[in-house]
Amino acid sequence: MADPSTSPPLTRASVQAALKLIEPYVHKTPVLTNTSLNRLASAPRTAAELEGTEWAGQTPAKPVLRFWFKCENLQKIGAFKARGAFHAIERLKLEPGWEENGGRERGVVTHSSGNHAQALAFAAQTSRIPCHIITPHSSSRAKISAARDTYGAHITFSGPTHPERQAVCDAVAAQTGARFVPPYNHPDIILGAGTAALELQAQFFASPNNNSGRRRLNAIITPCSGGGLLSGTALSCEGTGILVFGAEPSYQGADDARRGFYSGKRIEFVKSETIADGLRTPLGEIPWGVIYERRLVKGMYSVGEEQIKAAMRLVWERMKLVVEPSAVVGLAVALYNEEFRRMVEVEGGEEGWDLGVVFSGGNVDLEKVADLFA
Amino acid sequence: MADPSTSPPLTRASVQAALKLIEPYVHKTPVLTNTSLNRLASAPRTAAELEGTEWAGQTPAKPVLRFWFKCENLQKIGAFKARGAFHAIERLKLEPGWEENGGRERGVVTHSSGNHAQALAFAAQTSRIPCHIITPHSSSRAKISAARDTYGAHITFSGPTHPERQAVCDAVAAQTGARFVPPYNHPDIILGAGTAALELQAQFFASPNNNSGRRRLNAIITPCSGGGLLSGTALSCEGTGILVFGAEPSYQGADDARRGFYSGKRIEFVKSETIADGLRTPLGEIPWGVIYERRLVKGMYSVGEEQIKAAMRLVWERMKLVVEPSAVVGLAVALYNEEFRRMVEVEGGEEGWDLGVVFSGGNVDLEKVADLFA
Repeated sequence: MADPSTSPPLTRASVQAALKLIEPYVHKTPVLTNTSLNRLASAPRTAAELEGTEWAGQTPAKPVLRFWFKCENLQKIGAFKARGAFHAIERLKLEPGWEENGGRERGVVTHSSGNHAQALAFAAQTSRIPCHIITPHSSSRAKISAARDTYGAHITFSGPTHPERQAVCDAVAAQTGARFVPPYNHPDIILGAGTAALELQAQFFASPNNNSGRRRLNAIITPCSGGGLLSGTALSCEGTGILVFGAEPSYQGADDARRGFYSGKRIEFVKSETIADGLRTPLGEIPWGVIYERRLVKGMYSVGEEQIKAAMRLVWERMKLVVEPSAVVGLAVALYNEEFRRMVEVEGGEEGWDLGVVFSGGNVDLEKVADLFA
Repeated sequence: MADPSTSPPLTRASVQAALKLIEPYVHKTPVLTNTSLNRLASAPRTAAELEGTEWAGQTPAKPVLRFWFKCENLQKIGAFKARGAFHAIERLKLEPGWEENGGRERGVVTHSSGNHAQALAFAAQTSRIPCHIITPHSSSRAKISAARDTYGAHITFSGPTHPERQAVCDAVAAQTGARFVPPYNHPDIILGAGTAALELQAQFFASPNNNSGRRRLNAIITPCSGGGLLSGTALSCEGTGILVFGAEPSYQGADDARRGFYSGKRIEFVKSETIADGLRTPLGEIPWGVIYERRLVKGMYSVGEEQIKAAMRLVWERMKLVVEPSAVVGLAVALYNEEFRRMVEVEGGEEGWDLGVVFSGGNVDLEKVADLFA
C-alpha cells in the first residue's frame, strides 16, 4: 500500500482515476431493478407493523421509491472489497522506488477474518506479490483455506482481539518487510471502494429501465462499518447532487457511525454481535473526515436484526440473489425505517426517488442461512 | 395464443422478431462469468471421483471451458418462462379479429403448477387480459397466492394428473371463451424462449471479459423438459455455427429427450421425482421437430441427482445466485459428465470452448433449500 501521504486527493476525480486502474481486474457488476420490491417500498406500512416500534401511533410514511441495486455480491471474491484491494496493489506498483527496492518480493500484509483478507490475497496473487494474512484462530476454516489454497496467501494465526491481531501483524511486517494494507482506513482503499457507486451512476443513466428521463439518481445508500464503502461512495457523488446515506444495524450499539454523526464525535469502540457481521467495526478516522467533517454524507440510519433478516429474505426470494446480512442493511432502512421513509416522502414528493442501493457482498455460510430460513 | 398455423416460421429471424416484441416487458438479464468455476471445469476429474460411475477406470477428460452464464433466474417472475408468455400474449394481440371479436375480454387459460402459470398471469395482467390458471390442489400455497394476489389470475383447482388438469382446462376454456396457452408445445412459446440465447450471443460479443477475440460462442447448453427452451435456443443459433446441447436429469428416466434423441423416437411418458422438478415433463412434439428432426441440437446429456445438488451448491456459493435445481443441469453436465467433457476436449483442443450456459430459473422454496444445505 502506498504511503497515505502520497495518495491521490479524496475527490471524485480520484475515484474516476481509481476505476481506470482497477477496471482490468474487477467485474463491472450488474445493476438490477425489481418491480415487486419497488411496490413494497412504495406502499405505506400498516399501523400494525409500526406497533412496538418508536413510530407506533404515527401516520405511516408514503414514499415513492424505485431501487437500483448495485450487485457487489457478484463482484470478484463476492464483495466490493476487491475494488479497494486491487486499487491498493495498483497504487503500490506505481509508488516510486517500490519495485526497485524489493517491495514486490516483500509483499503485503493485513489482518482480517473476512472479505478484506480474501480480496487482498486475490489482488496480490494476480500481480504475483506475496500476501500475509493474520487471522484469529477462531476464523472459519473455509475462509482460511480459500485465502491459502485458492489465493496462495501465507496465514499466521493470532488471538482474537484487535491489539493481539495488530501485534502479530506488526511482527510479520517487521520480519518480512511486507507493506501493511489496512481494510478501510486508507485513501487508496476508500477511492477503490467508491468505484462501485461511480459505475452505478453511469449504469443508471444508460439503463433501458430508466424511464424517468432523469440523468442521475436522487440518492445512494450503502452499509457502513469501517466506512470505506460509504466514504468512497460519498466522494464518487461529490458535486453531482446525488445525496448519500449510510445504514447500520442498531443491535448492541453497532450504529456507532450514526451516533457519532449526530453527536459530532466519532465513536471508536464497538462490541456488537449483530447478524450483520461485516458491520461490527467502528468508523475509521479518514472515512469520518469524508462522511462527517466534509459533510459529504447527508444522513445515517439504523435498523434492527429482524428487519435485516426480513430484507435478506426478500432479496433471496424476489431477486434470486445470495446476499450476506450486512449487504441488505441499506434496503432494510428504505423498507422499514420510518424516519428515512418520511424524508423520501417529503423530499421526493409524488415523483419519488430513484435510489441506488449497494449490496456490498454475498459471502455467507449456506449452513448458517439454512438455520435462518428453516 | 395465436392459432399455431398463423405463427411465424420456426427460424432465427422469427426469434429476432420475438425479441423485438417482448423487449419492452422483460429484463435483458445479465451474463456472468466466474473464474473459479472455469478453473474447476477445466481441471480433469480425479480417478477417485470417477469411481462408481460409468467412467470408472478411464483417463479423465481434460476440457478447457470458459462459461458464460445467462441468468434467467434474474428474469421477471424468476424464470425464462416470462419470455414465452409475453410473446404469446403479444402475438395474440396481433391476431386479426382477436380484439374485435372480444378475445381480450375472454382472456387466456393454462394449466400449470409452476413457472409458466406465473409467467402467463403476469404477462396477461400487464396487458389487462383476464387469465385463468388450472392448478392441482397439491400446488404450493405460495405459488397459488402469487398467481392470484400479485398477478390477479383466476384460480381453478383440479386433480393432479395431466388428463384431469386438461379436462378442467378445457371446461374453463369452453365456459369463458379463454384461449389456451400451452407451456411449451407452441411456436410462439418456443420463439419467445429462444430470445434468451439470442441476447446471450450479443452479450458475449460485447463483453469486456471476452478476451478470446472470438465473435461467437462455441456452444450453448440448456436444460430440457418440454423442450421449449432448448428448441428456441437451437433456433436462435441456426446458421451461426454455435452448437447447441440439451441437459436432463437421469433420475428415474427423466432423461426422456436424450433417450428419444438417440433412439430416434420421441418418448411421450415420463414419471420421475427428480429434484429438478421443472424437468419432469416429456419432450413436446413441436420441440422434437426442431431438436431431432431438423437436427438443430447436436447432442443430449444427463446427470444424476448428486451432481445437480453439487452444481447448485457451487452456483449459490461461488456465484451468489439463487437457482432452482432444474437451472443448473447444464452446468452439472459440463462439470461432471465425462462424455460431454471428452467431446469438449476433442473438439475444443487447447484453446477450449466458450460455452453459454442458460440458468433457466430461480424459483425455489428457501425452506427446501435449507434442508438440502443443512
